[in-house]
Amino acid sequence: MGTAATATVAAEAVRRCHALAACSEEPGATTRTFLSAPMRDVHAHVTQWMTAAGMTVAVDHAGNIRGLYPGASPAAPRLFIGSHLDTVPHAGAFDGVLGVMLGIALVGSLDGRRMPFAIEVVGFSEEEGVRFRTPFIGSRALAGSLDDELLSRRDANGHTVADAIRAFGLNPSRVGEATADPGALAYLELHIEQGPVLDRRSLPLGIVDAIAGQSRLTLTFSGATNHAGTTPMAMRRDALAGAAEWITAVESAATAIEGLAATVGHIETTPNVGNMIVGRCDVSLDVRHREDQVRVRAYDDLLRRAGEIAARRGLVLAYQHHLDQRATPMDAALTTLLTRAVASSGAPFAHLTSGAGHDAMILAPRMPVAMLFVRSPGGISHHPDEAVAEADVAAALNAGLRFVDLLAAERR
Amino acid sequence: MGTAATATVAAEAVRRCHALAACSEEPGATTRTFLSAPMRDVHAHVTQWMTAAGMTVAVDHAGNIRGLYPGASPAAPRLFIGSHLDTVPHAGAFDGVLGVMLGIALVGSLDGRRMPFAIEVVGFSEEEGVRFRTPFIGSRALAGSLDDELLSRRDANGHTVADAIRAFGLNPSRVGEATADPGALAYLELHIEQGPVLDRRSLPLGIVDAIAGQSRLTLTFSGATNHAGTTPMAMRRDALAGAAEWITAVESAATAIEGLAATVGHIETTPNVGNMIVGRCDVSLDVRHREDQVRVRAYDDLLRRAGEIAARRGLVLAYQHHLDQRATPMDAALTTLLTRAVASSGAPFAHLTSGAGHDAMILAPRMPVAMLFVRSPGGISHHPDEAVAEADVAAALNAGLRFVDLLAAERR
Repeated sequence: MGTAATATVAAEAVRRCHALAACSEEPGATTRTFLSAPMRDVHAHVTQWMTAAGMTVAVDHAGNIRGLYPGASPAAPRLFIGSHLDTVPHAGAFDGVLGVMLGIALVGSLDGRRMPFAIEVVGFSEEEGVRFRTPFIGSRALAGSLDDELLSRRDANGHTVADAIRAFGLNPSRVGEATADPGALAYLELHIEQGPVLDRRSLPLGIVDAIAGQSRLTLTFSGATNHAGTTPMAMRRDALAGAAEWITAVESAATAIEGLAATVGHIETTPNVGNMIVGRCDVSLDVRHREDQVRVRAYDDLLRRAGEIAARRGLVLAYQHHLDQRATPMDAALTTLLTRAVASSGAPFAHLTSGAGHDAMILAPRMPVAMLFVRSPGGISHHPDEAVAEADVAAALNAGLRFVDLLAAERR
Repeated sequence: MGTAATATVAAEAVRRCHALAACSEEPGATTRTFLSAPMRDVHAHVTQWMTAAGMTVAVDHAGNIRGLYPGASPAAPRLFIGSHLDTVPHAGAFDGVLGVMLGIALVGSLDGRRMPFAIEVVGFSEEEGVRFRTPFIGSRALAGSLDDELLSRRDANGHTVADAIRAFGLNPSRVGEATADPGALAYLELHIEQGPVLDRRSLPLGIVDAIAGQSRLTLTFSGATNHAGTTPMAMRRDALAGAAEWITAVESAATAIEGLAATVGHIETTPNVGNMIVGRCDVSLDVRHREDQVRVRAYDDLLRRAGEIAARRGLVLAYQHHLDQRATPMDAALTTLLTRAVASSGAPFAHLTSGAGHDAMILAPRMPVAMLFVRSPGGISHHPDEAVAEADVAAALNAGLRFVDLLAAERR
């Protein structure tokens, strides 16, 4: 396909993202949680576009929309290309959606040409975890890990995942049918970076080497609530002062370790009144790194520091461990192929670690996975200002087509 | 009066505090805001006790209960002894109330003996500022500063101070009549310390030299909300990290300046979600010192540091100044007299600054004022565990009686 043709297809993919952004639970904003009503409109659009690109369309019982583009032979293995179609509240137009639109654009660009593998483009029903506080419901179904425990989790109104599936006209007892065949060839995900790294380095594309592992904890510093006027500084056990010292330590420790992200994003104090010394302060800790050992060592060290700070100040420290998720390396051979594809396309790129989780992480135990990032201008995501440059989308499409060709060459 | 007699009277004063603690808006807790229904029961008890001590009782139109013990002559000037009868929500039994009970005990202990001044014991209707977010309504009436603006302030239900006065059966247009005569001799307030200083130093009594001045500000650090996983440490503008660095600086700066109290008691972050970098952080600052110059220099310095921290981190700093209240020195001559009284009583004592505001502060522009603190075990106040030792109450009563005698000797 020529440069002008790619640019046209890319522009259309961007237009389609904007069209789907109008399918929302809230007028004037883009909010589309798991199998909510506007997902029906999304499916109607996607069905039309997939069909036009030469695919046969079905919705599986986890609510994933799946377009199948046959291979050269009926026995050909399957290359999955996908991302998710749900959004966070007040989202932008591109997180997840762009990857699905690029998959359709890529298949459409093959223009009926048969490859030694089938291509299945998947628009996952759920990745963000908004409604059930459980992310990746869609890709878990494909990975075969959407089990009964998960189906019975409840949203804020007491409805289960199974209820939501039924309400959409699907059958939760049949989600097992959504599982990908064990002979699946690979999964490729194209996604916006959602961070500022490519933009700062003026690079349109990024090749993901790994999805960072992640730990989440809550720490509680307990001291003594007292009158701000009558308690001399030396007689205080100020829980906020202790937490503040630790937050500063978190930041400098993380800055000193290459690739480590450590964030305190949530803080809550009691009584939280200007003229009272804080007696209790709860803070969150989110730690991510591509190497599990570095991550674990980092939060161990931060907990130790919290303990030291608390002890020195006469505070009591308690903590809860909410999540420990190992890092997911992308498949090495597939990523080498993707790197060759991007390099041969001429687009400048870098290798990077994804700090955010993605569907590729869920599918990695099931099949080889690879991910390509598209630059996020300003690093903005999960916000209506989320954007992409059409030229970058064209570069991603080009790279994707070369990837498919290289994969085909390997299979011949 | 002998030691045994004083002990009995002090024990009775403590019992009375407990009896009044049962007069509450909430069963099982002590909550008594401005002229709420339980204040009628308080007035009934107080009237009985004041009458028994030889006083004529009246309630003024600001709701203060006032017991007059005549002097040796009708022209004798008036010594006021008082404190407040309202409480914070879920209060203890002694904050304010003890001072009124001690005033009554003191007059009762005179046993009809006439002094060269009248003594008026006042139970102020309001000091805590709970209902109207405006403290000192009672003592302002005595000071002549309860004006129309203040009478028109509204509570959470839209009722004005004037409405509350009317609802109690009083006449807000007559609050002017509550103003103390310009020839008033002095005001003595006995109050629990509400802080840990006397307790730590094992001293039953404290002589207040000054009520600290106070400044209250809100600072806002604004950065950029971003994804905690995808934004490298070096590319963040984390408002909470900036605020935390500053909170630590506040604490160490305050610790380095003798007598300074600086507190961050309130913090609020946006979005306040564990996996997002905080984009905006609002923090309170409460600064108190007995010397206005030290206080002003301290918050100027803390604002300057906040500005430096914000600038270095690419944050924007804004602040609002809510309150600047000058320090109130106690009357030097009256405090010398009080010191002589306490010293001659044999009770160990220290001079200290009150970090909390008191009615004495409001009356200071109208007449000479002095304050005596009674040790607060554990420094606990504004809490059901608020306590006093009966021996300390007896010491305060003894000192108060000596003060009255010394004042009488001066007037003769």
